[in-house]
Amino acid sequence: MSAAVSYDPRTGRPHEEVADTTPNEVARVLGLAAAAAPAVAQASPATRAGWLRVIADSLEEPATARALVELADRETALGDPRLTGELARTAGQLRFYATVAEEGSWLGATVDHLDSGTVLARVRAPLGPVAVFGASNFPLAFGVLGNDTASALAAGCPVIAKAHPAHPALSQSLAEVARAALARAGAPDNTFGLVAGFDAGTAMVTSRHTAAVAFTGSQRGGLALWRIACGREVVIPVFAEMGTVNPVVVTPGGAQRLEDVAAGFVGSFTLGTGQYCTKPGLLLAPAGSGAAKVVGEALNAASPQGWVLTEQIAHDARAGVEALMAAGAEVVAQIAAPGSGWGAAATVLAVPAQRLRRGSRLLEECFGPVALVAEYSDEVELAAVLAELQGALAGSVMTGGPDDPDTAGAVTALVPLVGRVTVDEWPTGVAWTWAQQHGGPWPATTAPTATSVGAAALDRFTRPVAFQGVPDAALPPALQKANPWDVPRRVDTDLEFRP
Amino acid sequence: MSAAVSYDPRTGRPHEEVADTTPNEVARVLGLAAAAAPAVAQASPATRAGWLRVIADSLEEPATARALVELADRETALGDPRLTGELARTAGQLRFYATVAEEGSWLGATVDHLDSGTVLARVRAPLGPVAVFGASNFPLAFGVLGNDTASALAAGCPVIAKAHPAHPALSQSLAEVARAALARAGAPDNTFGLVAGFDAGTAMVTSRHTAAVAFTGSQRGGLALWRIACGREVVIPVFAEMGTVNPVVVTPGGAQRLEDVAAGFVGSFTLGTGQYCTKPGLLLAPAGSGAAKVVGEALNAASPQGWVLTEQIAHDARAGVEALMAAGAEVVAQIAAPGSGWGAAATVLAVPAQRLRRGSRLLEECFGPVALVAEYSDEVELAAVLAELQGALAGSVMTGGPDDPDTAGAVTALVPLVGRVTVDEWPTGVAWTWAQQHGGPWPATTAPTATSVGAAALDRFTRPVAFQGVPDAALPPALQKANPWDVPRRVDTDLEFRP
Repeated sequence: MSAAVSYDPRTGRPHEEVADTTPNEVARVLGLAAAAAPAVAQASPATRAGWLRVIADSLEEPATARALVELADRETALGDPRLTGELARTAGQLRFYATVAEEGSWLGATVDHLDSGTVLARVRAPLGPVAVFGASNFPLAFGVLGNDTASALAAGCPVIAKAHPAHPALSQSLAEVARAALARAGAPDNTFGLVAGFDAGTAMVTSRHTAAVAFTGSQRGGLALWRIACGREVVIPVFAEMGTVNPVVVTPGGAQRLEDVAAGFVGSFTLGTGQYCTKPGLLLAPAGSGAAKVVGEALNAASPQGWVLTEQIAHDARAGVEALMAAGAEVVAQIAAPGSGWGAAATVLAVPAQRLRRGSRLLEECFGPVALVAEYSDEVELAAVLAELQGALAGSVMTGGPDDPDTAGAVTALVPLVGRVTVDEWPTGVAWTWAQQHGGPWPATTAPTATSVGAAALDRFTRPVAFQGVPDAALPPALQKANPWDVPRRVDTDLEFRP
Repeated sequence: MSAAVSYDPRTGRPHEEVADTTPNEVARVLGLAAAAAPAVAQASPATRAGWLRVIADSLEEPATARALVELADRETALGDPRLTGELARTAGQLRFYATVAEEGSWLGATVDHLDSGTVLARVRAPLGPVAVFGASNFPLAFGVLGNDTASALAAGCPVIAKAHPAHPALSQSLAEVARAALARAGAPDNTFGLVAGFDAGTAMVTSRHTAAVAFTGSQRGGLALWRIACGREVVIPVFAEMGTVNPVVVTPGGAQRLEDVAAGFVGSFTLGTGQYCTKPGLLLAPAGSGAAKVVGEALNAASPQGWVLTEQIAHDARAGVEALMAAGAEVVAQIAAPGSGWGAAATVLAVPAQRLRRGSRLLEECFGPVALVAEYSDEVELAAVLAELQGALAGSVMTGGPDDPDTAGAVTALVPLVGRVTVDEWPTGVAWTWAQQHGGPWPATTAPTATSVGAAALDRFTRPVAFQGVPDAALPPALQKANPWDVPRRVDTDLEFRP
């Protein structure tokens, strides 16, 4: 039986080992999740919200929080301050999805009185067990108790998470916290399960018990799972949120404050040693601004150093810089990686805009603290470059201020490319609120209409069902006349809302 | 150059010929649609609603309506009353989607004021050109100006429709009506286009200009398009609504009025010569009810005769009955097809419930006026049979009345299987209203969360985009402070609705 070995990135030495789940055990866990699905679906949103709040409270219990942060730091080297903040964020997200579940808009409850006298009503129903593949780079907030798990539970679906090979021990500890909290909160048995190992992951996607897959990670990993799911007899949705090059457009007005922009860009693309899926990977500045040089100077001034999560990521970052150079980019500035363990050298490369053409390696993500800078001669060339880019999670515009005449044009040009446009803000902060959209056109995600963060994250795990002529007592609660779940509804042309 | 030949199903003789669109012309039409996309997207929902209403009015202009119905009848043999009703439905749908567009809920406009002071806002943006493959069986309501086209235009997307090979001349006439109406209404040039021919269809799915595909038809056709789309470099969504076996459960109470249920079943499964995607194809009645015999008698009493749309459908219906017999079903009653042209024999078959097992031909749709009847011994066997069925568009329960104690259980059992549950109503009527859900689990559709009928049909052709820190003037209208499109919005935790 093989096992996931967890390493300390600061030294590269192994320090924990988590055994792979056996095929029989994976099948058992998935079968139990399927058996739990009806009870999880029948629990009211307020009840499920209670479960999420108990998990959040458990994570923040001081001894638990300390132990989780310490373990996370040993497995990821992301550092105590970042991980302490991320734990608070994880608890905050769980509580946010609890609020969203209770509010009930996501159910889309709609009641029509047809001319025939029949009532036709529609509500979203939970899909069933969701397989969650968490991210390497956010071991807590996008991990086994991150946005995917929280929104799936909020929507009424059992969750089976896969332990991440970069932090298997943390994954296990988080699962123990969740299981104990769910039991204490009175959730049905097997509302949450954990499996470990590559084969367990594949088995989750092919199992007839799995209703949907949520994934955060690389294009290679996400597309592989998507292809497996597309080969099933009954195809299931895969919501894969993947890495992309998130472009930044500096307007001529923005170029007037280029040092400021360059410092912000360096801070954003080296944050967490560049291990953000929203990392801005390409800065497009007006010709003659000398942007590459200014960004290089900002990098030298900041001199960021850090470890990455795995030996593979360290290797890929090094190889990525070489590949970018082979494709026509030139290194402008580079800060050496730490002398021990798995580091990555923060690197700025300059590239001629004409090289940014579909199919070039320059347009693919280089995970780690690596970014490109190019200059565009005019709006026509800027539009031409943007037309070549892959779909991305986020795109940013750096302007000369609120009255910059070029802002609207740049925003409009980015909309078809991205899931989120930011103006004079860096894309690496992702708020978990009602309006958030964390997704984007293919290949940023496999499901461009879906979001993995924000209130609409619940939609991924539900499916609308219409009920025609069904007696009130046989309707789901959200559609019954008495509205026992107290959710907002549309009744014919009226919106029937609660305070 | 090949051509689509249109036949009169009553005689099987050819009567019109429509040339295939050349590859160059297909590319030109798609390029023009892509060029029109920004202008179509920028038009306000009220403006787009105006376009839809002008198309609806044009369809109902008396001379046009008469010519369309006559042409449709020559190509489909569906008869004047049905086609006259379907034309009215088509115009009604266009006006409904106009109302939905204007109302604006579908935009999902959401505005958050973050603690940092930043505004984060989210709205659905049109995807771009939509390729529409209409249905054979509803040449008007699900044809080139049917639900897909109407909802795509309402959502702000140009449409390129494919002429249906079973009614190519009608497709062309409808396109002419649409183009003239759109020009009169002041819509951007190339808001609507039409192509013809098999290769043109493939080219629509592979073109870089196409943003989404909508299809109504057979599993074979829909899955073929989905596979082509999945093989693209930039994968696009395919919303294929396909044929399924829509099950009907008769409760013990419902069996008390079995003659009534049988007559309704026969009326529903032979409607339009069985060419409905919502045709109830399997009746499950309590053991000892003698349901197969009673349904057979009802078929003999009704003695329905009719033509089907194409020679292929006629052939497949005959072959389908033979295949069902080979798989263990027995013919209980059969009404001979008309003596001329392309008819199909209305047929009731009985089958032992134990034969209804995953993988059996018995569980696949037989398009045409053909249905199975099986008896279940108890709730356990009923649940076992339902667990074997494929996902379906609709499922029905026939009860003993509003107080039938078995209704709720049957409804609950059908929910995981279908997109719509009807009680004491037959599934073949599909209302186009706010609450409608015309979709269902794989393989009823390739996108089980989507609907091809009803207000939510617009969602298929839009994608949410978030705007962070974007100045008011650079925001899309639905998110601007002044709310110039006057759409319902969520602002932080409040729902901000208009009368």
